Amino acid sequence: MRVEALLFDTYGTLVDWRSSLLDELAAFGRARGLRHDWTAFLAEWKACYRPGMDAVNRGETAWTTIEAIYRTRLAELLRARAIAASPEEIDHLTQGWWRLRPWPDTVTGLARLKNRHVISPLSNASFVGMVHLAKFAGLPWDCVITAVNARRYKPHPDVYRTALALLGLPAERVMLVAAHNYDLDAAQTLGFRTAFVPRPLEYGPGHTTDLVAEGKWDVVVDSVEGLAAALGG
Amino acid sequence: MRVEALLFDTYGTLVDWRSSLLDELAAFGRARGLRHDWTAFLAEWKACYRPGMDAVNRGETAWTTIEAIYRTRLAELLRARAIAASPEEIDHLTQGWWRLRPWPDTVTGLARLKNRHVISPLSNASFVGMVHLAKFAGLPWDCVITAVNARRYKPHPDVYRTALALLGLPAERVMLVAAHNYDLDAAQTLGFRTAFVPRPLEYGPGHTTDLVAEGKWDVVVDSVEGLAAALGG
Repeated sequence: MRVEALLFDTYGTLVDWRSSLLDELAAFGRARGLRHDWTAFLAEWKACYRPGMDAVNRGETAWTTIEAIYRTRLAELLRARAIAASPEEIDHLTQGWWRLRPWPDTVTGLARLKNRHVISPLSNASFVGMVHLAKFAGLPWDCVITAVNARRYKPHPDVYRTALALLGLPAERVMLVAAHNYDLDAAQTLGFRTAFVPRPLEYGPGHTTDLVAEGKWDVVVDSVEGLAAALGG
Repeated sequence: MRVEALLFDTYGTLVDWRSSLLDELAAFGRARGLRHDWTAFLAEWKACYRPGMDAVNRGETAWTTIEAIYRTRLAELLRARAIAASPEEIDHLTQGWWRLRPWPDTVTGLARLKNRHVISPLSNASFVGMVHLAKFAGLPWDCVITAVNARRYKPHPDVYRTALALLGLPAERVMLVAAHNYDLDAAQTLGFRTAFVPRPLEYGPGHTTDLVAEGKWDVVVDSVEGLAAALGG
């Protein structure tokens, strides 16, 4: 197995979006003396992710970045709860998706892998969002590739194929790394190598999905450091 | 003037392609005991650059990466001189465009600018070529954007507009940095900020073009370090 490039799912796989955004929402609430169940709020907010992307992939809605999808939903949720927020505050909270803490093994693991491989995100995030997240979290990417480059969302095959075209590599020399079985399944179908890094706390204490490998993935490890070790770096 | 992102022309502006490739060609010649005027050879090789890209921009030829244009021309030049070379050797020499030395001020200047700005190439190179060049030369990009993302070559406006779309920024918050007046002119027409960094040795001792600013560029400096200082970093 000769892997030249590693593509990483990012939200969940490399960064802990849930605890980071709960902190952002709590700070927003504190600043206005507001008590609220932000855990439930965030679950509802995040729930717009898949339907919004699926509508784009089916061609029902025009291309829309994930930020725009999140922003629209956030404004709806605040309005439904009669929580006043200025457009700037809504922008700031939406851009909370650019200020997410990495898991403890992420940055050191990526740095090791970068010595021997090309490393890039392959995320459903916007391109600009992924650039800012990398600066915030210290993710040492060689380049950035996201759904925006294909104007389709994972698991649409165009997203994975766009990455191969940009990198000039055949699928068998590229490994997708993800905490989500559906993502690995789509990549493997196209001939990619696959690495599963489960993140059992992604959705908090009640997390029940993607706890185990649901396919024959090439590598199963519990951290990005573990992946570096498995690939001999 | 509030500049959030800096886009850099790369060949010539940041890396010394000429002396680096002369070394590669000389090493190729030495390995086969061959004496040749590699300076003239390289000038002829490089001369395919603009016509090959213009044909793509005019729609006369289908999208072709600059590597493919260079590879075809290299094979022609070697054949015309009856210099035998295997496909692997031709690949290796073509990929010499991915192994170019930075100018002495490039890496330290980029590192300073990265602290306060998003920094990216905006090159006519291939995406994969720019990724490998960054690893070789230590260019600390936040992301990579090239002609491949637009499937057009600079100075076609689609290349500059694609960068704005990916970065989610209006032109006036983005600065193009280049050693070539034509590139700055195209960017300024679209509303970009501009910085001219002349590189009077790009084409060697006989270099005669782009020695002075031919437009009203926002910044004119003699190095990337000088640009960092001019922007207050």
